[in-house]
Amino acid sequence: MIRFYNGKTLRFDGGAHLTADEVWTDGGEIVYVGAPGKEKGAFEREIDLGGDVLMPGFKNAHTHTAMVFLRSLADDMPLDRWLSEQVWPNEAKLDEEAVYDLTRLGILEYLSSGITASFDMYVKNEANARANIDSGFRTVLCAALNNFDKDVENIEREYQRFNALDPLVSYRLGIHAEYTTSIERIEYAASLAEKYREGCFTHLSETRAEVQACVERYGLTPPQLLDRLGFFRYGGGGFHCCHMSGEDIALFAEKKLWAITNPASNLKLASGAAPIERMRKAGVPLAIGTDGAGSNNALDMFREMYLVTALQKLATGDAAACPAECVLEMACVGGARAMGLDDCTDVAPGKKADLVVLDLQRPNMQPENNLVKNIVYAGSKENVRLTMVNGRVLYERGEFFVGESAERIYGKANAFIRKIRQL
Amino acid sequence: MIRFYNGKTLRFDGGAHLTADEVWTDGGEIVYVGAPGKEKGAFEREIDLGGDVLMPGFKNAHTHTAMVFLRSLADDMPLDRWLSEQVWPNEAKLDEEAVYDLTRLGILEYLSSGITASFDMYVKNEANARANIDSGFRTVLCAALNNFDKDVENIEREYQRFNALDPLVSYRLGIHAEYTTSIERIEYAASLAEKYREGCFTHLSETRAEVQACVERYGLTPPQLLDRLGFFRYGGGGFHCCHMSGEDIALFAEKKLWAITNPASNLKLASGAAPIERMRKAGVPLAIGTDGAGSNNALDMFREMYLVTALQKLATGDAAACPAECVLEMACVGGARAMGLDDCTDVAPGKKADLVVLDLQRPNMQPENNLVKNIVYAGSKENVRLTMVNGRVLYERGEFFVGESAERIYGKANAFIRKIRQL
Repeated sequence: MIRFYNGKTLRFDGGAHLTADEVWTDGGEIVYVGAPGKEKGAFEREIDLGGDVLMPGFKNAHTHTAMVFLRSLADDMPLDRWLSEQVWPNEAKLDEEAVYDLTRLGILEYLSSGITASFDMYVKNEANARANIDSGFRTVLCAALNNFDKDVENIEREYQRFNALDPLVSYRLGIHAEYTTSIERIEYAASLAEKYREGCFTHLSETRAEVQACVERYGLTPPQLLDRLGFFRYGGGGFHCCHMSGEDIALFAEKKLWAITNPASNLKLASGAAPIERMRKAGVPLAIGTDGAGSNNALDMFREMYLVTALQKLATGDAAACPAECVLEMACVGGARAMGLDDCTDVAPGKKADLVVLDLQRPNMQPENNLVKNIVYAGSKENVRLTMVNGRVLYERGEFFVGESAERIYGKANAFIRKIRQL
Repeated sequence: MIRFYNGKTLRFDGGAHLTADEVWTDGGEIVYVGAPGKEKGAFEREIDLGGDVLMPGFKNAHTHTAMVFLRSLADDMPLDRWLSEQVWPNEAKLDEEAVYDLTRLGILEYLSSGITASFDMYVKNEANARANIDSGFRTVLCAALNNFDKDVENIEREYQRFNALDPLVSYRLGIHAEYTTSIERIEYAASLAEKYREGCFTHLSETRAEVQACVERYGLTPPQLLDRLGFFRYGGGGFHCCHMSGEDIALFAEKKLWAITNPASNLKLASGAAPIERMRKAGVPLAIGTDGAGSNNALDMFREMYLVTALQKLATGDAAACPAECVLEMACVGGARAMGLDDCTDVAPGKKADLVVLDLQRPNMQPENNLVKNIVYAGSKENVRLTMVNGRVLYERGEFFVGESAERIYGKANAFIRKIRQL
């Protein structure tokens, strides 16, 4: 058992609220949250919070982790050239080993930003899953069926395999996007959703051009088309959701589909700003992702949280839009629920020990006017003192404990970059 | 003398470029930048960069440092209520001691973000200057003449006093804003500009309403009005510059006036996004500021740099807008020139030793595809390994060396908050 004591605990039952509770974990779970002074268990470690705050980890609800190799490889160029000259040719050079190594690098950055789980849509899922398991990190893999897949039925095999492989790994159904996937293949994904009574996810209404092309092809927006095809029969949701009509928002609210926003990536690729405040007021469930480092370029939930609310204030002209408490709940709780990690939503007995300690003895957390607003509006990676996944401390005071040194992981990523430059 | 060796040096003569130079400082100056192996001097300290990068510090070219007490005191409310219920009543409670203590807190956050100088427009400049001198930090105070000042001529006395007080402190002429300052007082500031052949600065065209009201009053935009009154006869510039007409931009380009952008504050207060890319292409000199923590809420140049370019990409619909190299130069060099710190612009012999070491052995700086793009698009406070001002290391690996412990500075800020809550 591990004991956290002498600090604050941020709980999320009935909205974010602070307590003076101490917290015990045992194996992968939280076993006690309550007043100090209870008879002590046999602790392998007692962590003195020294006034710092313990809270549920952030959930990165949309990402392509191994894409970290594209960070700063090609910026400041138009989207079409970025995709055709850099992303696609370089992604074609990825093999299993590269995806494994690069996923490990991405996980380091998640840990340094207090992220305890990723919702990861990428290629070579076997290597991806292994990198997560070997690092001790939690991931939910997302199917990305599209017209380039040679083996359509692979997603059903993956669904079965990765939902049984390891407690740290699960798998959700999905397609890459409407514009990369034929009607037949979307219907196939929908048939699996029906068979397994599972939600389905996809990139959705990311750019204006994507929505317009879909309307021209089918007379329907992407959310409406997918809904007609049965894709959302058992829930699910969309990544990005920048360009949502009133009807799209009503559909998402009615079916409780997740709108997963990626503000930094949408800004940098000039895609637009998702109508988060409108969706929130309509009752659409919301979560936050970093997207891949190729388009972001950081994997930093603090930056995303700030952008979620700041962009809404700009877009609506209302400085009261999208309050900090809602944003923090999106990052800690919403993401977990979107990914099917209902046991990773809170600091409460029986929940998974996916926890973060934030260092409050830093200038950006002072004075202590309001902790939640400080975190959302002023927090940064420098505040992440400790990140625990499934009861194991994987990051603490700048050091990583993921079964491989950070230096070796950096070295492998740089070796891969040298290799693809020669190919 | 202090020696930095075994790393990279980012120099700015002729655009940002990396060298393998080592760097020596002596007192407050850089005395050697060049190949390793030169006969060694007598070093009081030799700092092994271990592959990390040494570069000029960031310049925070618009801020209200002591406003840090308003961080998270009032967010998520409309601008008018924020000003009338929180900012003004609480600012009225500031005394000299509070400004001193709070300025010291703001300086800690600057150091943690690699900022080595501030362009600070606030109240109680005597306490402000003292806090900077006592911390070893560099500041350029900016006059903020407005209709509430009882002693108009104080700015001339301040101009003389603070430009002679200490090598770390200087003072520039300015007014708070067109909308808070009568024509007579603007003309008085312009007369001082004429007398001392100095540039003048002001909050400028921050909101659409401000510009409209000025046009209604005088038939001129704020930049045009100020120019007519002689305010810009010897240069200077504006803070914010969100709503600039084509003529305003042409004026700024022709007179080489500084447009100092504050993107986080403009987003959060829903003021708009400055047309940085248009101004850049027109030849307007550019710099970056955090504004005060009351509206930002962080004092973090990494966040500002990201927002400068990302917002331009969104606003122009062009992912190639405002490249990383330009943004880094705005933060390191542009800010210095705007503030009159021409000797703080580069890592070069004879320049001031206002330097930063960024830790590249962090996941967000890997792989090493492009250092400048990594810094601008993925950098964070966690990368600031060391901050040196005027040849003194004031921050290193999370610790502050400013003549007072961080804990005491936090304690005083929190005591002030408790006090104003009881007033």
